[in-house]
Amino acid sequence: MGIFSKDIRTMDDLFVHQLKDIYYAEKRIVGALPQMIEKATSPELKSAFEAHLGETRNHVRRVEQVFQMHGVTPETVDCPAIDGIIDEADEVAGEVEDKRVLDAALIAAAQAVEHYEMTRYGTLIAWANALGRSDCGSVLKSNLNEEEAADKKLTKIAESGVNAAAA
Amino acid sequence: MGIFSKDIRTMDDLFVHQLKDIYYAEKRIVGALPQMIEKATSPELKSAFEAHLGETRNHVRRVEQVFQMHGVTPETVDCPAIDGIIDEADEVAGEVEDKRVLDAALIAAAQAVEHYEMTRYGTLIAWANALGRSDCGSVLKSNLNEEEAADKKLTKIAESGVNAAAA
Repeated sequence: MGIFSKDIRTMDDLFVHQLKDIYYAEKRIVGALPQMIEKATSPELKSAFEAHLGETRNHVRRVEQVFQMHGVTPETVDCPAIDGIIDEADEVAGEVEDKRVLDAALIAAAQAVEHYEMTRYGTLIAWANALGRSDCGSVLKSNLNEEEAADKKLTKIAESGVNAAAA
Repeated sequence: MGIFSKDIRTMDDLFVHQLKDIYYAEKRIVGALPQMIEKATSPELKSAFEAHLGETRNHVRRVEQVFQMHGVTPETVDCPAIDGIIDEADEVAGEVEDKRVLDAALIAAAQAVEHYEMTRYGTLIAWANALGRSDCGSVLKSNLNEEEAADKKLTKIAESGVNAAAA
């Protein structure tokens, strides 16, 4: 089920549904990152993934905090979008033989994940504010800031040598 | 198939594979936008989707141009990431009853699509440059610029009234 089902009648329903979507996404990312850490060759990339795994565990807790603030029991919904993105990322593991090309591919996969999260948090924050829940928006903003920083760090790692080494 | 298959051995293979991925994505978006135009209620949103359909048809042509510049026959690969994102967007059609909530949901779906394209074009441009094909990167940059502008326009439409009306 995506974010659009017939039980979505109000903006509040839509907000809660999107929260369940990102909750599912963050949990899937916690499950996916260890494989990406194992497969990365560049020490900077490995270390960036390790740092982001720690951050992602925190993101799960912050999303749970927003559920609580909003008086809703934390639960996930399946979401074809993040499933599709992570299925592609999972395929990295063992599918590209050249280690330097694999690093470039891993960065691309991780950035696709980051961008998905960035768009969903951007939407959630806007909706929280529209619903008069800027307190929830503020907690979600902490997650968004860390996703944006992680994305920028990956761009720097790619530009600082991974892409050139792969080419 | 995602971007990672065993026939990816070089950075050039990875670049061409990613090009086929975005080619598939742009074509799926051309197919998905008419339904989103039909379902949008806000005149600004409808008009933004209409303008972006025209741009997206151009994006398909620019990607074909890059294939030609790179001496490769244009073809697509299936891609679970964009399939998942667009499957969610498709579900909008007819699934949210309140028209104002539907507009907010349509904007969120379209922004998820834009962010997917932004990350893929960002990667493709970096890889084109690493491969010494900044001429290809320059054509791809035109698409990236329009995706970024479309995303910002959607944020403005959401902030200028759609979210408040839905809430």
